[in-house]
Amino acid sequence: MLENYSPEIQTALKKLGIGVGQKIAVQKGENRYEGILMPKSAGDPAALVLKLDSGYNIGVAFEKSTKIEKVKGKERPPSAGLVKKTKVKFDPNKPTIVILHAGGTIASRVDYRTGAVTPLFTAEDLFEMFPEIADFANIRTHVVFQMFSEDMEPEHWQTLAKKAAEEVEEGCAGIIVTHGTDTMHYTSAALAFMLQNLPIPVLITGAQRSSDRGSSDAAMNLICAANFIANSDFAGVAICMHGSPSDDFCHILPACKTRKLHASRRDAFQAINDSPIAKVSYTTKKIEFLKKDYLKKNPAKKVKLDDKFDKKIALVKLYPGFNPDLLDSYSGYHGIVLEGTGLGHAPINALDDATKKHAELLKKLEQMSKKGVIIFMTSQCIFGRVNLDVYSTGRDLQKAGIAPAHMLPEVAYVKLGWVLGHTRDPSEVKKMMETDYAGEIIERTETKDFLDERFLEK
Amino acid sequence: MLENYSPEIQTALKKLGIGVGQKIAVQKGENRYEGILMPKSAGDPAALVLKLDSGYNIGVAFEKSTKIEKVKGKERPPSAGLVKKTKVKFDPNKPTIVILHAGGTIASRVDYRTGAVTPLFTAEDLFEMFPEIADFANIRTHVVFQMFSEDMEPEHWQTLAKKAAEEVEEGCAGIIVTHGTDTMHYTSAALAFMLQNLPIPVLITGAQRSSDRGSSDAAMNLICAANFIANSDFAGVAICMHGSPSDDFCHILPACKTRKLHASRRDAFQAINDSPIAKVSYTTKKIEFLKKDYLKKNPAKKVKLDDKFDKKIALVKLYPGFNPDLLDSYSGYHGIVLEGTGLGHAPINALDDATKKHAELLKKLEQMSKKGVIIFMTSQCIFGRVNLDVYSTGRDLQKAGIAPAHMLPEVAYVKLGWVLGHTRDPSEVKKMMETDYAGEIIERTETKDFLDERFLEK
Repeated sequence: MLENYSPEIQTALKKLGIGVGQKIAVQKGENRYEGILMPKSAGDPAALVLKLDSGYNIGVAFEKSTKIEKVKGKERPPSAGLVKKTKVKFDPNKPTIVILHAGGTIASRVDYRTGAVTPLFTAEDLFEMFPEIADFANIRTHVVFQMFSEDMEPEHWQTLAKKAAEEVEEGCAGIIVTHGTDTMHYTSAALAFMLQNLPIPVLITGAQRSSDRGSSDAAMNLICAANFIANSDFAGVAICMHGSPSDDFCHILPACKTRKLHASRRDAFQAINDSPIAKVSYTTKKIEFLKKDYLKKNPAKKVKLDDKFDKKIALVKLYPGFNPDLLDSYSGYHGIVLEGTGLGHAPINALDDATKKHAELLKKLEQMSKKGVIIFMTSQCIFGRVNLDVYSTGRDLQKAGIAPAHMLPEVAYVKLGWVLGHTRDPSEVKKMMETDYAGEIIERTETKDFLDERFLEK
Repeated sequence: MLENYSPEIQTALKKLGIGVGQKIAVQKGENRYEGILMPKSAGDPAALVLKLDSGYNIGVAFEKSTKIEKVKGKERPPSAGLVKKTKVKFDPNKPTIVILHAGGTIASRVDYRTGAVTPLFTAEDLFEMFPEIADFANIRTHVVFQMFSEDMEPEHWQTLAKKAAEEVEEGCAGIIVTHGTDTMHYTSAALAFMLQNLPIPVLITGAQRSSDRGSSDAAMNLICAANFIANSDFAGVAICMHGSPSDDFCHILPACKTRKLHASRRDAFQAINDSPIAKVSYTTKKIEFLKKDYLKKNPAKKVKLDDKFDKKIALVKLYPGFNPDLLDSYSGYHGIVLEGTGLGHAPINALDDATKKHAELLKKLEQMSKKGVIIFMTSQCIFGRVNLDVYSTGRDLQKAGIAPAHMLPEVAYVKLGWVLGHTRDPSEVKKMMETDYAGEIIERTETKDFLDERFLEK
């Protein structure tokens, strides 16, 4: 269990009978660090890794003068953070919120033996950990999955959508989906397309740090979601995550115009080409709408589950040196979203020896297109909107049958699978891709005499 | 030439003998729009597209009451914007800057017959258009290519690096590479790796709007680059582009920590996980360094051209529903950079029927790795740093032979090709990928007693 630590550290620890998971103190000069000894899988072998009570991991370089000692008291139990289950009585004066549990970090804890973070908590456990939710609502919880979101497949989106539609029909004020953050923005888009005509809000939330850690963002995200459902008139799918690195407020983010933009920060989720829908204060509980044109709750509406999905789709990033032969693997696909450069460009111009193969890329795209693979272009720039009319490259791509998709690449991918679930007729598919179903389309300035957004100074 | 315009518009225009490229006036109620009639390739067929004198394109909805007339005066000539060539005398008191011309929008103009933007200007033309550069320096210009940057291949990076090294050896105060913006951040990384030990600055610049347009950002980017080379002590490769949407200042951006983050804005280029190196005012010409630890000019240094590159590399984006069979096309590759989710994750856990194939992904990655394909993991989050030690998924990937690359996906791709040009020994490759050659590594907080950056509140 001490593997990957330096021989010096291993010797010192063994002499003291200290193993991974043991609470220890490390003294270096005037500094003293107390925490649980964590296993090491990489990094400087001469640094001890401790998990502090705050939940932070710290590395302490081990030198000859460094003193290590065992700290009395129990090892942190695996169930740390879980409070005793309390029965919460149904309050007829409060709305009912359904928590659909999909897994992820929000439902994970650190295993102090292996150092890994693993999904563990159930939706009920979560509710028990954060009983403040009961201030806002009665809670009904269901475990739908217990998985990290990078493992999600379109089938899981369908299951979540179906379960959500059932709960809407059974009756509730809103739904919270607790979900891993890695692919949360893919799932939010999928649910937005699959759950048409929603009378109530469906908020997806999660955490960047596991719920058993002092520094977890889980509690605030969950509580802000519950507050927003109970105390606003918003309806539809949205993401609820930290709006700043501090525990001060959450943003309610548009389902199809949001992206995880940071690997680790609590405020990793950002609205792209749009503003957040609302700001929910954690401290004052105040809700402030940043957008005015959102869908409103409407009990008269009946949710329409529209979860058809065609999995024969792919998302392909282009880059300098992209080999056109790679496209051959996609010949059996029904639809492809390209992540081009800039305004939606691809290396298709054969100019010299080094670019000879570019002509092949254009030819392959055209052939695939003619054989019924429907191809859309998006931009790896992330911000902004593709425009295939500005440069000759874009015009040539259009001639080869490639159409612009005015949405984020990830959203275009999800939407294409959903659209192809409805029709494979190319002109119908293109029409549906151009139609705004869930706020996914990145808009031009919408005046009748429009100024091309490309030329707008922002 | 009037194709894609509505029959009503075509009739009206034909009656007046108006064709594309003709200057016209459109009267709608009290509003009058004057500009050049542009061809139409998509969009609302009932809107006339005019290019205004400012260079903006405007769409004017055509209604029954809309009046169109020809405007007297010449059509805008294709050479509009080009001033008469003036001989600039060599000034021995000024430094000499070399402009290496690679093409792109900065060297493009709008063809008023087809509406497309095409590369046209040579480096000399550019200099003639923006004679203010001569305020800062004597200029030597070379046309290396005349291409859009989406067509760049690694061979072009090598040619540019070789040409730059030659010019450094011939003697100059600095080099400006005028380049398309689509893949500028790939090229900046490539030049940073290929041009080791630079005694002087090499700045890459370009434009988001073509140089013959009133709204072009070309002049300011070029002039700020020349000013920065002439009047600062910076050495090394960097990008010089607009720092705000206005024409007020440019940012000098780190070659390996910058990305085009917007499809159309002038300030599309942003430093990622880092601050810009410096701010160069266009109005006051003042240079302000935002970083202190940059490399300094040093005439004693001798540039080392290190342009070996292995093109058998690929960049593969992962997403929910990614089909492991797609990996089969990469079996002959020498190196792959994966764009994973979150901290660098991949769908590798087989949990249920829908995720059965995930086990195959892990197995394929492991087999490829064993057969000598060297695989690195980056994150599609863009901001932040991968960490394969936090979750079980990351640990399993490492066991399968996948190593984290602590840099932007695009930079990891360029660097991997460069590293594989030097060695194919897996442990050597990994060592080189971990070594910082050009400021590419995203750093942890670098104290000896480090706090894992994942847990740092920013």
